[in-house]
Amino acid sequence: MNLTILGCYAATPRSLTNPTSQVLEIRNRMFLIDCGEGTQVQLRKNKIRFSKINHVFISHLHGDHFYGLIGLVSTYALLNRQADLHIHAPKGAKEIILLQLRLSNSWTGYNLYFHEIEGDLPQVVFEDEKVIVTTIPLQHRIYTNGFLFREKEGSRKLNIEAVQKYNIDTCYYQKIKNGSDITLDDGRVIPNSELTFDPLPPKSYAFCSDTMYKEDIVPLIKDVDVLYHESTFLDSEEHYCERTMHCTAKQAAKIARLANAGHLILGHYSTRYDDIEKFREEASGVFKNVHLADDGKVFDFN
Amino acid sequence: MNLTILGCYAATPRSLTNPTSQVLEIRNRMFLIDCGEGTQVQLRKNKIRFSKINHVFISHLHGDHFYGLIGLVSTYALLNRQADLHIHAPKGAKEIILLQLRLSNSWTGYNLYFHEIEGDLPQVVFEDEKVIVTTIPLQHRIYTNGFLFREKEGSRKLNIEAVQKYNIDTCYYQKIKNGSDITLDDGRVIPNSELTFDPLPPKSYAFCSDTMYKEDIVPLIKDVDVLYHESTFLDSEEHYCERTMHCTAKQAAKIARLANAGHLILGHYSTRYDDIEKFREEASGVFKNVHLADDGKVFDFN
Repeated sequence: MNLTILGCYAATPRSLTNPTSQVLEIRNRMFLIDCGEGTQVQLRKNKIRFSKINHVFISHLHGDHFYGLIGLVSTYALLNRQADLHIHAPKGAKEIILLQLRLSNSWTGYNLYFHEIEGDLPQVVFEDEKVIVTTIPLQHRIYTNGFLFREKEGSRKLNIEAVQKYNIDTCYYQKIKNGSDITLDDGRVIPNSELTFDPLPPKSYAFCSDTMYKEDIVPLIKDVDVLYHESTFLDSEEHYCERTMHCTAKQAAKIARLANAGHLILGHYSTRYDDIEKFREEASGVFKNVHLADDGKVFDFN
Repeated sequence: MNLTILGCYAATPRSLTNPTSQVLEIRNRMFLIDCGEGTQVQLRKNKIRFSKINHVFISHLHGDHFYGLIGLVSTYALLNRQADLHIHAPKGAKEIILLQLRLSNSWTGYNLYFHEIEGDLPQVVFEDEKVIVTTIPLQHRIYTNGFLFREKEGSRKLNIEAVQKYNIDTCYYQKIKNGSDITLDDGRVIPNSELTFDPLPPKSYAFCSDTMYKEDIVPLIKDVDVLYHESTFLDSEEHYCERTMHCTAKQAAKIARLANAGHLILGHYSTRYDDIEKFREEASGVFKNVHLADDGKVFDFN
């Protein structure tokens, strides 16, 4: 699992900083999370093979998380994309995107599916045999969800030395990986535990932006491996949090501590700050493993 | 009068090239022409004082000319803009912008006026005491207009030496600049021609993108000082022009020649070409004063 930060600054795109967008690679799936203006250029600059993205998750419809989506959808059409594209976004996203496609008479040659999100309870928005994605209801000025990405338990790893020792035919390998014992021609039963290793523990990633301090989310992200949590302000601007419905670095760290997260990545910095290192300093007083998101940075979770 | 090219490439924004947008400074007015994705960042990178822009002219609602507008409108709101903003754009632009503002619950603190353009005849879309802007109906895959920006005849220039020689009081200066003769206390009448110089000849700029080859526009832009005309293709791809409704460099040059333009600026290059110098070469066979637009380039018309 790895995470590429395409943009992690609040409010407006600027010459050297970009609004929120991330690419999460998880079990060979490539997910785009949020899509501020300029995301398609950031995908190119970061050399992401963005034709591989089949699912886009949008937290909320504020511009710095969403205004790049129509451009990406259009560019896929111009590049003659054929694969389906799924957009998981708050209700309203479909109307915005389709209105623009209609008025520009620019339809997509690929199937574009909207999965609009409503409701205030956590819900599964994506699931296949390897990954499950659940919403994390957040508290912001408009309807907003974070997303929890969890790998499913993988199949067991073959112990090649052991299967070769017993001269087991390759046609049984998948059965063994699925957990079966094997009966040899001479009648001996070899227990699965002798033929396999435990699978790697499944990893999880929680994306929480934008939100005010909200302890309700702690049970939803309990023991998450990596938590990205917005930290728009430093302590000195904490008084802005209530009105703008954002968090400080310390508040983000408190959520990480309560949730027993493995690592905390901070982002969504207000553009009033020149030095983001101070976010790390303030959060580190509350939680140990603090990392700073920055545009172009890649986090490898393995 | 000067023109800053923020972007001049067709179709999709890329790492090093931007879709169409320009800033025209004319008689101390600053006009934004088209607004592809990333325009607000290009305004910053080119150090344009974009709070000075009060009028935006949109040729058509294809993404590479329009998708940056919602971001600019929102950024003005975040920057606490107070001045009115006028958007001159094809019908539909208002619905797109307002829908997005409504769904993000992000209203502007300034007055946002939409002047939607319809109809296939040239029409005045802006006029004040110094400048007049007229549409140039173009022929593209969706409803599209170019824009003709014309300075009005300025007032006459005061001949300071002459007015001082006759000891004329400063309170008469505006009257003289407006063209009046002056009667001195001794009864002598001094003709205006002795007290003033001719004003600078008014300049004009025509923006024509996107369009297929359309000779109808020639009378509308006759004798224009500077013509920006799209040239999406080179001769080798001329066969794409009919289907995509774009022009070659030679076709753009032919329009410039027929219109007796002073200068021709080419742009809206297809991103299939690595070397835009060939556009100049091909156009120069047809028309003399050919210039190449490029992102960040400034043209001074004086």
